[in-house]
Amino acid sequence: MTPTIGVFDSGFGGLTVLRALLARLPHARFAFIGDTARLPYGSKSQRTIARYAAQSARFLVNEQGAEFLVIACNTASALALDAIKDAVPVPVLGVIEPGAEAARAASRTGDVLVIATDATVQSHAYAAACRARGLRALEKACPLLVPLVEEGWTDAAHVTGASAAQAASAAPQVAVTAEVIRIYLTELNAEAAAQGMNPDTLVLGCTHYPLLRSLIERAVPPGMKVIDSAESAAEAAARLFGQQDAEAFPTATQALRCFATDSVEKFERLGSRFLGRPVGKVELVDLGG
Amino acid sequence: MTPTIGVFDSGFGGLTVLRALLARLPHARFAFIGDTARLPYGSKSQRTIARYAAQSARFLVNEQGAEFLVIACNTASALALDAIKDAVPVPVLGVIEPGAEAARAASRTGDVLVIATDATVQSHAYAAACRARGLRALEKACPLLVPLVEEGWTDAAHVTGASAAQAASAAPQVAVTAEVIRIYLTELNAEAAAQGMNPDTLVLGCTHYPLLRSLIERAVPPGMKVIDSAESAAEAAARLFGQQDAEAFPTATQALRCFATDSVEKFERLGSRFLGRPVGKVELVDLGG
Repeated sequence: MTPTIGVFDSGFGGLTVLRALLARLPHARFAFIGDTARLPYGSKSQRTIARYAAQSARFLVNEQGAEFLVIACNTASALALDAIKDAVPVPVLGVIEPGAEAARAASRTGDVLVIATDATVQSHAYAAACRARGLRALEKACPLLVPLVEEGWTDAAHVTGASAAQAASAAPQVAVTAEVIRIYLTELNAEAAAQGMNPDTLVLGCTHYPLLRSLIERAVPPGMKVIDSAESAAEAAARLFGQQDAEAFPTATQALRCFATDSVEKFERLGSRFLGRPVGKVELVDLGG
Repeated sequence: MTPTIGVFDSGFGGLTVLRALLARLPHARFAFIGDTARLPYGSKSQRTIARYAAQSARFLVNEQGAEFLVIACNTASALALDAIKDAVPVPVLGVIEPGAEAARAASRTGDVLVIATDATVQSHAYAAACRARGLRALEKACPLLVPLVEEGWTDAAHVTGASAAQAASAAPQVAVTAEVIRIYLTELNAEAAAQGMNPDTLVLGCTHYPLLRSLIERAVPPGMKVIDSAESAAEAAARLFGQQDAEAFPTATQALRCFATDSVEKFERLGSRFLGRPVGKVELVDLGG
């Protein structure tokens, strides 16, 4: 049987991680589940998040035959990674450690900036993972970026099949998003300077932010490196899994099934922008309470 | 005993309705509950919303002695008003009917625009309430406005105690919000024109939007009236309740207790901007599953 990699998110933002995985593991099968019925995880207690995440992990392992799990959700990676590891007998990889590891490799000054959702910032999981690697990290919540991405007010380059006319008519919307990014990064850089930091690396600590990457790269100070934790997690997964993939299944065809616990319509409508290709039919599953 | 008016919302946006009620009923006691543990209601099924809303309504009536309920939540007003009326033996007023009634009184052309959250627009409750009054209504979801309000990127006039320096430093943020409003209203007016409508009235169909009222009034075409459904609901409640208030309790002192099912910290921090004065101590209650 072709090995299956299970990918879990509270919503569909984790499709950016899946996209990066698909590009690196051409022979693997993938099963993705978005627990859309119960999002947002960010406003829930750690115990509830751990219980929900463990249910999705068991679904991927027990019902989809996943032999490896990627937790493509910053909140669940921050608050439920140990609970997921306890719940299933397969290797589990989150997005935070790979993001911090990539920051360590990229930074020369040892000072790192992290932008993320409010819930991820409040967990201080990136700061802890950076500190464990000898880095100083300053985190900032950017609550407007997820709704801007979900509205589609992103760089037209990310809109699959956008015509030149569509790209032009979207210009005011993209200008708004660019200005929001400029305001957040100005505040963050000012705060870093006030703390005597000299940051040279910015970590994108939210699975929605890869859709803003080109706008963010244009907004950072010259020379600052941008680390995408979705890419970093996929690279780490490929290192762990890739050798096996290439050697054992050289002729297997990549396959993908997507599941959601609710809102299949929104998942299908928005998901392709995150995945960079059509998500196809999303299957509805009921994980219970 | 002084009569108590119960006010219910899924979060704290309904504090704008409470603010309007406080201004109109100087002798009443108020009990407000925000079901913050289970927001957002917008992504949940009608049955779940009805069950949650009925629990909050019973809490206000049975435990806080409410003799009158105002449902200060567009989603619950749209999807759960009948369930709430069935659950409690007191009069219940939602925000949608008063908003539509105010639009009928204001509009001369009979064509009305409504901006609201995605969930409220998908319910088409405003369009139905307008149609029942002989109005044509065109609704538009504006998903960025709630997060912009919650970030505080609103007109500095709404920020309690903002200094001139604070107001000036917030200028780029307010400019972003003004531009988002301009984009949404441009799209909505173009859609109305394409449908041969001649709208002269705009209904703010979300309890967060009163904090954007001055920015929205600057963005609408000349002569277009702006109806705030929070104000309209408070006026309707005052008409139903006010006579009793003034006659029966001329010397009673206004009182207010606020409850939340979770996130008391965010409620206390952001709530005062919605209420226009400090919310004070917010009491945590557990309504069960």
